[in-house]
Amino acid sequence: MSELIESIQIDTEQSAITDAEIFDAHSGGKLSIGLTTALDTQRSLSIAYTPGVAQVSRAIAGDHTLAARYTWSGRLVAVVSDGSAVLGLGDIGPAASLPVMEGKCGLFKEFAGLDAIPIVLDTKDPDEIVETLVRLRPTFGALNLEDIAAPRCFEIERRLVEALDCPVMHDDQHGTAIVVLAALMGAARVLDRDMTALRVVVSGAGAAGVACANLLQAKGISDITVLDSQGILHRDRAGMNDVKAELASRTNPLDRTGGMVEALDGADVFLGVSGGVVPEELIATMAPRSIVFALSNPDPEVHPDVAARHAAIVATGRSDFPNQINNVLAFPGLFRGALDAGARRITGEMKVAAAEAILSVAADSLTVDQIVPSPLDPRVAPAVAAAVAAVADSAE
Amino acid sequence: MSELIESIQIDTEQSAITDAEIFDAHSGGKLSIGLTTALDTQRSLSIAYTPGVAQVSRAIAGDHTLAARYTWSGRLVAVVSDGSAVLGLGDIGPAASLPVMEGKCGLFKEFAGLDAIPIVLDTKDPDEIVETLVRLRPTFGALNLEDIAAPRCFEIERRLVEALDCPVMHDDQHGTAIVVLAALMGAARVLDRDMTALRVVVSGAGAAGVACANLLQAKGISDITVLDSQGILHRDRAGMNDVKAELASRTNPLDRTGGMVEALDGADVFLGVSGGVVPEELIATMAPRSIVFALSNPDPEVHPDVAARHAAIVATGRSDFPNQINNVLAFPGLFRGALDAGARRITGEMKVAAAEAILSVAADSLTVDQIVPSPLDPRVAPAVAAAVAAVADSAE
Repeated sequence: MSELIESIQIDTEQSAITDAEIFDAHSGGKLSIGLTTALDTQRSLSIAYTPGVAQVSRAIAGDHTLAARYTWSGRLVAVVSDGSAVLGLGDIGPAASLPVMEGKCGLFKEFAGLDAIPIVLDTKDPDEIVETLVRLRPTFGALNLEDIAAPRCFEIERRLVEALDCPVMHDDQHGTAIVVLAALMGAARVLDRDMTALRVVVSGAGAAGVACANLLQAKGISDITVLDSQGILHRDRAGMNDVKAELASRTNPLDRTGGMVEALDGADVFLGVSGGVVPEELIATMAPRSIVFALSNPDPEVHPDVAARHAAIVATGRSDFPNQINNVLAFPGLFRGALDAGARRITGEMKVAAAEAILSVAADSLTVDQIVPSPLDPRVAPAVAAAVAAVADSAE
Repeated sequence: MSELIESIQIDTEQSAITDAEIFDAHSGGKLSIGLTTALDTQRSLSIAYTPGVAQVSRAIAGDHTLAARYTWSGRLVAVVSDGSAVLGLGDIGPAASLPVMEGKCGLFKEFAGLDAIPIVLDTKDPDEIVETLVRLRPTFGALNLEDIAAPRCFEIERRLVEALDCPVMHDDQHGTAIVVLAALMGAARVLDRDMTALRVVVSGAGAAGVACANLLQAKGISDITVLDSQGILHRDRAGMNDVKAELASRTNPLDRTGGMVEALDGADVFLGVSGGVVPEELIATMAPRSIVFALSNPDPEVHPDVAARHAAIVATGRSDFPNQINNVLAFPGLFRGALDAGARRITGEMKVAAAEAILSVAADSLTVDQIVPSPLDPRVAPAVAAAVAAVADSAE
């Protein structure tokens, strides 16, 4: 196994990328501010700065909703992290998370035409994170939480959704869940199977695992078993945090216990969002025509070529294998649609609409090697934005 | 008087600017995010986002100072306001202050090539403002406080300077003081007078008045009298806030009392940063060859044509009269120089260097109608940046 995984590093187009190239591309940062109106003549200064700007400020003072029209805040996404769960690197802190947040802001621009700014916080305390973002509220139009560790991420997101009158979403949770749902719908369609009847195993009970289990359950899948590093989550297991205990209370309907061996035996779907390793022998025990989503990056839980010896459909998070499952399929269009519609919340209905829109772009060309569109497909974000805006209720 | 001031509104090039033109220029906001590296191919994503970005994050995790080199934070100015003292509009709140902050960010870009983002805070509590910005620290490289009301602005700035290891400056205080110092040095040179011997009257004891009095005193002017709406600040006056009491204890050496009548009688310099009105009769009581800086916007304390009947040199904050005194002469170059030098503080020495650099640009063409360069002169910010960087001590 480990030999196979190591070989991935070398056998890809990406092996040609050098460290020097990476650091060069990051020199000075990846974002810059541009002006959408002139500020270089006396006349333009009088329009866009003093005294003209006072007219606009006075109008907003009289009607705060005008800020969304006459400032960038109405289209501005704050990409917020405390740096506690960054990529596969873990708790590297806010300064070190900044290059990732800049990249994320760039993806918002590239795929959805939205402006986004990184906000990295030198605190991991949920109370402090929530109160800080509440104070910053007039600065932005939507909040993308990023790379915040579980279980704190659940409480922080819940409290911010309650406190703020704008779209708030922890992308590690819901962005992942939306794309996984789209991919599983695509896989079920390719295999001509009833998705709701599939027996699903989720490896990982962090941000992504919990959100995936929730969204798949909301879409009608009843037999979902979730594992963390201690094994299967079940009703009688002691010592789980509140989030896991709640999840255990409404998943695993057959009360399975044990570990990956017991979970995978006869399962239809393996969804890996754990960073762990699953040996080929266990994949071999899954049901016929099984589906394996090994999403850990950069090292999938099982090498896709190995999984393909046993599974009918295999997906990873990597660009150098078929069926790349990447959040960029969801978050740019989702936030764009929510902001276009003036939505105050991101609802479950909007998430499902996003997943269906992602799938719709690839609907005519679905195969076992293309269960979702490419993350670079420029049709995806506009389709997602339109679908999300259509089900958004700005008055809610 | 009031007829004359009203006529200013009509007789300028700016009278041709319509509300529609102003609101059009603000539609959608005045800022946008640009990408400095590609994110539109698989290869570019692998460099600037995952997996390549992990190399950069790992490097910063090992050495936090690398964030200044490999993210935009090293050149990013946060323009922060609570919206409590915006232009001449007063306490209009954070949302309504946002167009002004966007304009300010645009000026940083236009004149100094610095990226800047507006951060508007839904709190006026000094404790909350300070702790919020301390938590945001890894997000930016420098902090420009803007349009925060006195006397809170003094405490907030002082505490942030202590708490943060980066340049922090309340521009309404020090930006104004720097440009006033440059203009007064220019005026003294044109009139061939010893600046330190001038008897100066400062009308206004808010952010700008206090900072101007401090900087002029630091440059050797000993006879400075400051007035607020209640009259002259003097040692024995009751009911002053701490800032005014401290200022009164080391200005007004002849212990003058009373109001504008007593202050202006025989004075050499009137510096108006108050928003009040000074009648011609009082300007007429000033000493021969006097200097009048009537800086309130949009209505100067005294119409410049009226002041010119009595004063040798007249300056305003307006673009449609000679000698415009505008902060944009100072803050772009000042922050650029501080960031270029890696300075951790903005010192008094840097402020004086900035004032001298502003004046140096106009040194060969000084006249009574040009005591400072035009705010649009592109030579100013680079000259200021170089002078500031030269006296900055990054190790301090």
